[in-house]
Amino acid sequence: MSTTTLAARRDRALGTGAPLFYDKPLHIVRGEGTYLFDDTGRRYVDMYNNVPCVGHANPHVVEAMARQQATLNVHSRYLHEGIVALAERIAALHGPAIESVVFSCSGTEANEVALRIARGESGKQGIVCTNATYHGNSEAVGKMTRIGAGQNTSGDVRAIPFPEMFRPIVPGASESDLLEAYLERLRGVIRGFEEDGTGFAGLIVCPIFANEGLPDVPRGFMARAAEVVRAAGGYMIADEVQAGYCRTGRWWGYEGTGFTPDIVVTGKPMGNGLPLAATAASKALVDGFRARTRYFNTFASSPLQAAVGMAVIDVIERDKLKENVARVGASLKAALGERKKTCAAIGDVRGQGLFIGVEMVKGKALEPDSDRAIEVVNKLKDRGFLTSNAGAFRNVVKIRPPLVFSQGDADEFLTAFDTTIAEING
Amino acid sequence: MSTTTLAARRDRALGTGAPLFYDKPLHIVRGEGTYLFDDTGRRYVDMYNNVPCVGHANPHVVEAMARQQATLNVHSRYLHEGIVALAERIAALHGPAIESVVFSCSGTEANEVALRIARGESGKQGIVCTNATYHGNSEAVGKMTRIGAGQNTSGDVRAIPFPEMFRPIVPGASESDLLEAYLERLRGVIRGFEEDGTGFAGLIVCPIFANEGLPDVPRGFMARAAEVVRAAGGYMIADEVQAGYCRTGRWWGYEGTGFTPDIVVTGKPMGNGLPLAATAASKALVDGFRARTRYFNTFASSPLQAAVGMAVIDVIERDKLKENVARVGASLKAALGERKKTCAAIGDVRGQGLFIGVEMVKGKALEPDSDRAIEVVNKLKDRGFLTSNAGAFRNVVKIRPPLVFSQGDADEFLTAFDTTIAEING
Repeated sequence: MSTTTLAARRDRALGTGAPLFYDKPLHIVRGEGTYLFDDTGRRYVDMYNNVPCVGHANPHVVEAMARQQATLNVHSRYLHEGIVALAERIAALHGPAIESVVFSCSGTEANEVALRIARGESGKQGIVCTNATYHGNSEAVGKMTRIGAGQNTSGDVRAIPFPEMFRPIVPGASESDLLEAYLERLRGVIRGFEEDGTGFAGLIVCPIFANEGLPDVPRGFMARAAEVVRAAGGYMIADEVQAGYCRTGRWWGYEGTGFTPDIVVTGKPMGNGLPLAATAASKALVDGFRARTRYFNTFASSPLQAAVGMAVIDVIERDKLKENVARVGASLKAALGERKKTCAAIGDVRGQGLFIGVEMVKGKALEPDSDRAIEVVNKLKDRGFLTSNAGAFRNVVKIRPPLVFSQGDADEFLTAFDTTIAEING
Repeated sequence: MSTTTLAARRDRALGTGAPLFYDKPLHIVRGEGTYLFDDTGRRYVDMYNNVPCVGHANPHVVEAMARQQATLNVHSRYLHEGIVALAERIAALHGPAIESVVFSCSGTEANEVALRIARGESGKQGIVCTNATYHGNSEAVGKMTRIGAGQNTSGDVRAIPFPEMFRPIVPGASESDLLEAYLERLRGVIRGFEEDGTGFAGLIVCPIFANEGLPDVPRGFMARAAEVVRAAGGYMIADEVQAGYCRTGRWWGYEGTGFTPDIVVTGKPMGNGLPLAATAASKALVDGFRARTRYFNTFASSPLQAAVGMAVIDVIERDKLKENVARVGASLKAALGERKKTCAAIGDVRGQGLFIGVEMVKGKALEPDSDRAIEVVNKLKDRGFLTSNAGAFRNVVKIRPPLVFSQGDADEFLTAFDTTIAEING
């Protein structure tokens, strides 16, 4: 079937406007490791997908999924050892403060649980998020999507500007003054919640500010923000849906930021494509949530989620993917940093591990150039490399391949990237 | 591992209070068809689980799941024929008014989408639900959980009493007067929404009122309610998460009620345990939703959901499970009706297809007796038959087996049921 015919059928069956990537959408029919193949058999190197973290069609995951579905897959109101073991294993990947896990089916559902824990336990409603973030698509969680800076004075969700060094809120300020400026914005929103009676329940952040475009932040921001939040009686929620599961070369995005969250949300990579998400916290916080809500989730905490979730962690550990991410990611970031020197359209190269952002800019003022980012993304796609664009201004080329992405994949990509920027410099 | 040890580990890993069935919880390790097996090898006939609709460990589903996960499982921003074909197939199972589908991962997420369609398209916020219902666990959807009759005068979600013949709001009224009384309650709530500026967006109901205890309703209620709703500019949302997928011996619970919904929500049985849910409506409604929200769901509309969703419908059609449900369900309901004659504790036997409620009562006033229902459920469990209790007063023994439940299973169950009611009568 032609791509055009399929797209027309899709418009009818799924509704016009169901999102598609690229100027000319791809018809993908097969995946293997870091590769995706289209309907003509053309191979693409997948540099976007974090969900199939241990590689497309990973055989260990396929086998675990099939074996469990052929044995038992049922809801969680019977005892089953598998889901208990997965919860224990996830908790053990954190420090001692994280003890218990509430499983769900999507990052959206897991963030719903996180907000309910923070609000239920504090008895307050006010949640602070950052102004260019995304945490999910339900009504309660969707309210946090890209809240403009002017909209942070009413409602139970209010935004602070995300911290960054590249386009700081106080241009020219020293790093420590900038740190204080961002913290003062946080204090201001918390004061607003307290003064109008909403009360303050907590701060939710992606520890690496993925949707914001992976900014370098003033040193110490996360640790200091956690102090401010806790002094005000709030909880720190780390949305690790993108940052977690070795994406940064560490298990969790919050490691290395100098803070430990009270509540951790994980999702996308947990099941290599099986819907699986989790909200983890101390046993006291989870017990309180269970007592208040009697939360039950039909498809969650199932033997299938357990088996597949275990298989994913098995592969990450067996194949030393954390170490692979740290090694290949550092090499790729350094190589891209070199390209910045010869390409004026590259304003900044940022990120950690295998999550790298290349910020496209124009003019002396280094204005965000989303058109250029989209051009680069489409040119790279035509050359067989799948990326996307993200960031507060959509001008950051987003590189976030499966964790199995190799040095060879990176070398291949750099050749295509060089050709692309040569055209731009052209 | 002992059940006690596992339960203690579970309390720590998942939090104390994660729901479990039965006085003495079951440790289930394997499933096959209508059977579940515990850790000692004991066999139970599953008369509760609607999710594994084509049977536990159904080999056709296992094979489809494994094959697709080994081929491709990725998000929906590339073209893929599988999910388009599944949407087309689901739409074709409805009348011509249902054309397009928004997939998600849980009934909760699908009901979120339904509410957003109704509210977005009407431009109004007010949703009417029934007073003993459950539609999911997110903040927006959870607001509809068992709203008391006295709490229906503020907020954007308000309840009407669910229609029923067994404990009618006007005792002694004729069926047609009762119908009018229930409709007047609906009109009243809609007027309230209009008068206070909330506006009216729609009515959401399970067409068979599953959580309410499967009441027999005044004839024509659903069709007349739909007229009232549409005359007021609202949308009819059918939550078919429990009622749909041949549960009643028809494909959809709304069939035979005399109304056709504008928006249909499905979930539990769609993936035989794979998280899969859907919101279906006219193309115009879905297009509007897509345009307003740019909705994207990481794990939904995936090739895996498509393959498994197709396999489930394949088996339902191939094995004529709709017909099986109608035949075995009618026989089982009639047999249970016979038992009512000899057991004063059985107040009513209701339901359609393989979804049967046995209402337990006490005294001359036929008061709801939830203790008795729980006793029956636990005694049946001890005899190897898994049921649960439900209903507005939790006094209805809920019988809702996989669609593959056979006449032989029903006969076996009736023997155990007779022994159980003999003990009660004794």
